Amino acid sequence: MKSFEAAVDRLSRLPGIGKKSARRIVFHLLSIADDQVEELTDAIITAKSQLGYCKQCYGLSETELCKICSNSQRNPDQLCVVASPETILKIENTGKFNGRYHVLRGLISPLDGIGPQQLTISQLINRLTTPNETIQEVIFAFNPTNEGEVTINYLRQRLRDYPIKLSQLGYGLPVGSDLEYTDRMTLNKAFENRIKLNPEAENS
Amino acid sequence: MKSFEAAVDRLSRLPGIGKKSARRIVFHLLSIADDQVEELTDAIITAKSQLGYCKQCYGLSETELCKICSNSQRNPDQLCVVASPETILKIENTGKFNGRYHVLRGLISPLDGIGPQQLTISQLINRLTTPNETIQEVIFAFNPTNEGEVTINYLRQRLRDYPIKLSQLGYGLPVGSDLEYTDRMTLNKAFENRIKLNPEAENS
Repeated sequence: MKSFEAAVDRLSRLPGIGKKSARRIVFHLLSIADDQVEELTDAIITAKSQLGYCKQCYGLSETELCKICSNSQRNPDQLCVVASPETILKIENTGKFNGRYHVLRGLISPLDGIGPQQLTISQLINRLTTPNETIQEVIFAFNPTNEGEVTINYLRQRLRDYPIKLSQLGYGLPVGSDLEYTDRMTLNKAFENRIKLNPEAENS
Repeated sequence: MKSFEAAVDRLSRLPGIGKKSARRIVFHLLSIADDQVEELTDAIITAKSQLGYCKQCYGLSETELCKICSNSQRNPDQLCVVASPETILKIENTGKFNGRYHVLRGLISPLDGIGPQQLTISQLINRLTTPNETIQEVIFAFNPTNEGEVTINYLRQRLRDYPIKLSQLGYGLPVGSDLEYTDRMTLNKAFENRIKLNPEAENS
């Protein structure tokens, strides 16, 4: 059945969908009403045609400047640098951060041939040096991986001479995790980044 | 971003796709070429419009009679009864079975309110009693669950008076599995269905 195989083939090219899930999806599509299938394909086509990237932060946007960049209620002093737009959604969900973002569109990864030139690093620096910008702190929110560390090291060098505070997300034990199943690297980091419980003791 | 959320919502209604995978898929769709997205939605629309069910076996088909039912090379003596068309694809992949199929469109499940009337059981019996049919063996290939057993028991009753051999797929240890992780029911079944290694000993 050519049309069955074609739909399975196309669906299984999507991330996280194997042949088996693709088959299940096609069977599901056969079992639902025509207009529900139409609503699915319409939603895909509309998203593809309307969504783009913000010209300032490279986050997801339906307009030239995204909602966060154009929101005067956001704190202009803090800039959170992320690898991809997904991370923005994640951080926005926490409700913890009220600054703005910059999407690097990846991380430095010599093994994959990704250097600083492939990322939006020059755009980040332009942004930091734009006269009307008041960014005082840049927070790196990358995955705690080699690529993340390499990128942070590179950016620390590049931003060394700017009067801007640099920080990165804290490493440590995931909330609700079990020490028994924590890997050695995470445990090392948790020791290094241990939280002082009586900071006043240091001064005494 | 309405169009982003709408696409995520529609995608996450598909089986096996949660909000998180749906978001990943939408980001992926943004990163690929327009015509690749079009090929995906076209494949879905084509499958939905061209695929239907075989009027004889209720398997998946683009034509009134499916390729298996209309294939004179298939053994007309054996009929494999399955719950859903997915199972046909699975069995065809083994290359082990050359007979034909009948799809029940479910299994008897009193808890879910599914009785014999909701399934294609009368169509199965019509098929078995059609004058030009030569079916000699009916093989039940259901999931080894309660519903599977209830359905087999019901069909054994209904088909009791027909001169047709009935069989079901063998229960036992999955190939490549580890006894340590085998559940008690499977181990019980594996004992009951143990394979005689020297059948001649019985007669001596």
